[in-house]
Amino acid sequence: MKIVLLSGGSGKRLWPLSNDIRSKQFLKVVQNGAGEAESMLQRVYRQMQEAGLDADITVATSITQVEPIRGQLGDKVSVVVEPERRNTFPAIVLAAAYLYFEKHCSPEETMIVLPVDPYVGEEYFKMLECLDMAVQDGVADIVLMGVRPTYPSEKYGYIIPAKLSGSLGKGEEILPVVEFKEKPDIHMAQKFIDKGGLWNCGVFAFRLSYLMSIVQTMLEYGCYADVEHQYGKLEKTSFDYAVVEKADSVAVVAYNGEWKDLGTWNTLTEVMDEKPTGDVAVSGDCVNTHVINELEIPVVVMGTKDMVVAASPDGILVADKVQSSYIKKYVEDRDLRPMFEERSWGEYTVLNISVDGGGKRAVTKKKLVQAGRKIEETKHQHHLEVWTVLSGRAVISVQGRKHEALAGDTFTIRRGVAHSLQAEEDVVLLEVQIEEDGD
Amino acid sequence: MKIVLLSGGSGKRLWPLSNDIRSKQFLKVVQNGAGEAESMLQRVYRQMQEAGLDADITVATSITQVEPIRGQLGDKVSVVVEPERRNTFPAIVLAAAYLYFEKHCSPEETMIVLPVDPYVGEEYFKMLECLDMAVQDGVADIVLMGVRPTYPSEKYGYIIPAKLSGSLGKGEEILPVVEFKEKPDIHMAQKFIDKGGLWNCGVFAFRLSYLMSIVQTMLEYGCYADVEHQYGKLEKTSFDYAVVEKADSVAVVAYNGEWKDLGTWNTLTEVMDEKPTGDVAVSGDCVNTHVINELEIPVVVMGTKDMVVAASPDGILVADKVQSSYIKKYVEDRDLRPMFEERSWGEYTVLNISVDGGGKRAVTKKKLVQAGRKIEETKHQHHLEVWTVLSGRAVISVQGRKHEALAGDTFTIRRGVAHSLQAEEDVVLLEVQIEEDGD
Repeated sequence: MKIVLLSGGSGKRLWPLSNDIRSKQFLKVVQNGAGEAESMLQRVYRQMQEAGLDADITVATSITQVEPIRGQLGDKVSVVVEPERRNTFPAIVLAAAYLYFEKHCSPEETMIVLPVDPYVGEEYFKMLECLDMAVQDGVADIVLMGVRPTYPSEKYGYIIPAKLSGSLGKGEEILPVVEFKEKPDIHMAQKFIDKGGLWNCGVFAFRLSYLMSIVQTMLEYGCYADVEHQYGKLEKTSFDYAVVEKADSVAVVAYNGEWKDLGTWNTLTEVMDEKPTGDVAVSGDCVNTHVINELEIPVVVMGTKDMVVAASPDGILVADKVQSSYIKKYVEDRDLRPMFEERSWGEYTVLNISVDGGGKRAVTKKKLVQAGRKIEETKHQHHLEVWTVLSGRAVISVQGRKHEALAGDTFTIRRGVAHSLQAEEDVVLLEVQIEEDGD
Repeated sequence: MKIVLLSGGSGKRLWPLSNDIRSKQFLKVVQNGAGEAESMLQRVYRQMQEAGLDADITVATSITQVEPIRGQLGDKVSVVVEPERRNTFPAIVLAAAYLYFEKHCSPEETMIVLPVDPYVGEEYFKMLECLDMAVQDGVADIVLMGVRPTYPSEKYGYIIPAKLSGSLGKGEEILPVVEFKEKPDIHMAQKFIDKGGLWNCGVFAFRLSYLMSIVQTMLEYGCYADVEHQYGKLEKTSFDYAVVEKADSVAVVAYNGEWKDLGTWNTLTEVMDEKPTGDVAVSGDCVNTHVINELEIPVVVMGTKDMVVAASPDGILVADKVQSSYIKKYVEDRDLRPMFEERSWGEYTVLNISVDGGGKRAVTKKKLVQAGRKIEETKHQHHLEVWTVLSGRAVISVQGRKHEALAGDTFTIRRGVAHSLQAEEDVVLLEVQIEEDGD
């Protein structure tokens, strides 16, 4: 069994914690059993380990998410990078080609695709073995996991299985799928539930050979790079539409455990500890209020009810929980650059952006580079950079010359000059980028 | 007539906009007729000019407030600096000595003391001439202004005049004072109002000679410096207690116009425009919500009612307006350093404080130095400083050597090394202070 996690999403709905780079799956807002903050990505990975899944894990994602994935999981997973964003069908095809050509998986092996960010119980992962068995037994071309609905939601697609809900056995029973229904109104949703309908939670299991045979009808290829180079030719559509709905036989396993889609502040705060995060004081009369402060300045909250307060280097949200679902329109038309990023070498925060009278920008970042990690050699064509080491010890190379760098040392890096940094201890440095005219 | 403005206050109750240095009188949260933001200090000064008062103005304050006063009013007022904080009696004595010895005022001239931060109508300042006349006419040793109460407040002291309120004429009528009552309960407050009682708003008028003759019984002096050096000997008490309540004759003039004490967010927001300040988006369903954002990152507020949201480099407040009155306890026991200061040369914001593993701090500030102004020569014994110019043009002196400084230039200033900066254009620079061990 090979597991492919799909990691996408722009995450505007959890602004200011999420942004185009820091999608919701990377936010450390849930807690593990030991009370430590972890991200949804880290939670899903940990749960898979705890469930004892003997499976290789590959994450399919865009280039912007590679650094945060490496920052949070290190080298414990393989990462397949989509050349461009083209929906779930092309992404899953690319991951399949990667497993086939690069990991040399047997075509008969089961590939299970799951979203990276469901908030679920451990049973969810145990059930993946049941999907694997069903695929290997040849029950159907594609085996899905369906979530037992808890209310007639208008937000999800429904999978209608062959039998009535009354006759369904335990979650492990595998039922043929009769049809799929897109997001219905509440009236129809209730009808689907009465028929035993399940929420489509985006979990697909199939033999690798099954998908590769479909791909063969679309592309000519002999290696992974062939598929990668023709990525733009794959239809920009969902896997449900391109594959599942056209399959000869589809089966579903019902999952009866906890399952939450933490897509909005309102749903996310349901699973969050009410204990505030960061430098926060909350008055005793606050009711059902969640406060998350990622800034280095204190937040004081008094007399609030049913609210979420979230502060990050990107901005500050103060919202009634129900209203917070409508945040997208307040942030999506603004070209907000991410002010915080996790990278493979550590993380940075934008401290300031100054614009002078002539419109030239000076961007000041604080960078934390972890001991032993490296900022790879790079050159900038449009700005000069000044580095000031605040603490720690590093070797900084500027145009091939290496310098031992300690607190108080500065490095001025002119346009076009190659530079890199190797951290010997945890290093904190200030980076100022000053725009300059081109030649 | 000489006017003395008392500028004090630590301003914790308007946190995070106010702090130990930036008292509430310096916050630019009210608007002048042209819709421009101004501070209470600037408003009071402007109103005095508009009232056509032919008076010299002196501000009595502590050393920490000199820079913001100069930054907001320039050299238009004299400033008397209290050697230490010792309540209003010593502060007024020092100001009197300053007028007498340094400004060579006639002892017969009227000195009028007023708080720097009342939110009042223009009539308030017109009435000062009426106080002056009363003093010059010898109506009483001390003439007060009393505010006509609008409700039985428990927050103010009451001045009880001789006649019943029913027989009081226009505001200009001057009445002998029978007694003073400290902050009463609501029941007593109503009784005082029925008797014609007025709120004590801290406005005192008297002949300079009157106060100097009292001081003569306490200190021996022959010049201003004598009084300044013996400042610690003056009782740490209020002017009301030390002088007014012991005077042979006190009279009061009733002020019937607008008067507000903007000491809390709840009262301050009553006079503020509801239009948010700074980079703010407020959803249409917000009701009676004030948002002030002094940070460079956006604030989004959704679905709030009767709330104040204030963000500054010192911190972020999200509070129900009524609850905001209790803010003091959430901020007073914290040793919060001011993260923003106005100075005579411009202003600075602390962008970051990093502490390394060994407990050494690196503080990063952004400084804006206005064209033509100067950061005077100084030396630091405990930290090295790195300056990086982000924009503008300055002459920077380090150990007597002058350097023309432009965007991208860095200056490393070791401990004990004298340095100064003269701005030739508006200059923005980054200053990093890195703590070092002493010798």
